[in-house]
Amino acid sequence: MGPELERLILLLAKVPGLGPRSARRAALALLQKRETLMRPLAEALAAAAEAIRPCSVCGNLDTSDPCGLCADQRRDRGTICVVETVGDLWALERAAAHRGLYHVLGGTLSALAGQRPEDLAIETLIRRVASGGVREVILATSATVDGQTTAHYLAERLRATGVAITQLAHGVPVGGELVYLDDGTIAAALAARRPA
Amino acid sequence: MGPELERLILLLAKVPGLGPRSARRAALALLQKRETLMRPLAEALAAAAEAIRPCSVCGNLDTSDPCGLCADQRRDRGTICVVETVGDLWALERAAAHRGLYHVLGGTLSALAGQRPEDLAIETLIRRVASGGVREVILATSATVDGQTTAHYLAERLRATGVAITQLAHGVPVGGELVYLDDGTIAAALAARRPA
Ligand SMILES: [Zn+2]
Ligand SMILES: [Zn+2]
Repeated sequence: MGPELERLILLLAKVPGLGPRSARRAALALLQKRETLMRPLAEALAAAAEAIRPCSVCGNLDTSDPCGLCADQRRDRGTICVVETVGDLWALERAAAHRGLYHVLGGTLSALAGQRPEDLAIETLIRRVASGGVREVILATSATVDGQTTAHYLAERLRATGVAITQLAHGVPVGGELVYLDDGTIAAALAARRPA
Repeated sequence: MGPELERLILLLAKVPGLGPRSARRAALALLQKRETLMRPLAEALAAAAEAIRPCSVCGNLDTSDPCGLCADQRRDRGTICVVETVGDLWALERAAAHRGLYHVLGGTLSALAGQRPEDLAIETLIRRVASGGVREVILATSATVDGQTTAHYLAERLRATGVAITQLAHGVPVGGELVYLDDGTIAAALAARRPA
């Protein structure tokens, strides 16, 4: 099938969400939409690779540094929401649930994966909080063992700064049916019950 | 998130195998592998879009025209395997099951989708067969209603040329367990039974 196509399929197979089989199917579909999809995608990839960089303040990905969120003066600069990944930041932004700033850790502490505090953006977080003006740090790490270990570690490290440290509530997902929920979530939702 | 990123996510979401959600995840992963994956993929897409064209004889996609298969003098030029898509051609080549030439129809006849004979590469097939040297045409269209309708139509059209017209056998897929097979396949496999 020619080295150009073999190379394309090989690279497509490395894109998360595509495997070797779907990479072949994708390459084929792209070749059949050469002008409407394939060339535009090539150009969009090159343009985004050129333009988008991590924000030196919060770790978000954007075309400006500081990023659009950090530069937005309408946002509450007194609260920082700490997330594992830029994907988590985007999810929170889509939910329009947080009106303050963010801090992207770049993962979680993990004994198994050998991720230590110095592998994450923890020192920059401590410095941001210590530099003043921050009232609250919201620890929005995952509800996994590693995510919660990371949250506990950060809470310890931030204790001395005196700012409020909060975590996302556990509970029943909106639209979630109890019968499909795991026991831990049900127990957490019951423990965090509030007046109806 | 900036227009470059929005455009990238929009285009990635159009790639078969990726939806809007996985497009966002893919964009993020690509940005985190800017030099090792994102830029190489942009270049591979542009290179393949530039180099790869449909074969004017058989409809295969390749960097040369006639394609490598059509030009390969070691292949049996007396048999033509008719497939719906280039993907089907690739699947047959991977199986190394056919040593002759191919003909890509570009789909199936379909009353529902309004696909008529003139929308497929049927006239070029008739001309290829009529021009001589062909002993057998293997109709390897799908075992779907539209695929079989197309095969019947092609068999009718090719009858006058006098070449042998064959179809893929139905049966139990290799490694397939009877309990998971649909009745039609089981019935076809039983009807086509042979001495063990
Ligand atoms: Zn930022
Ligand atoms: Zn060809």
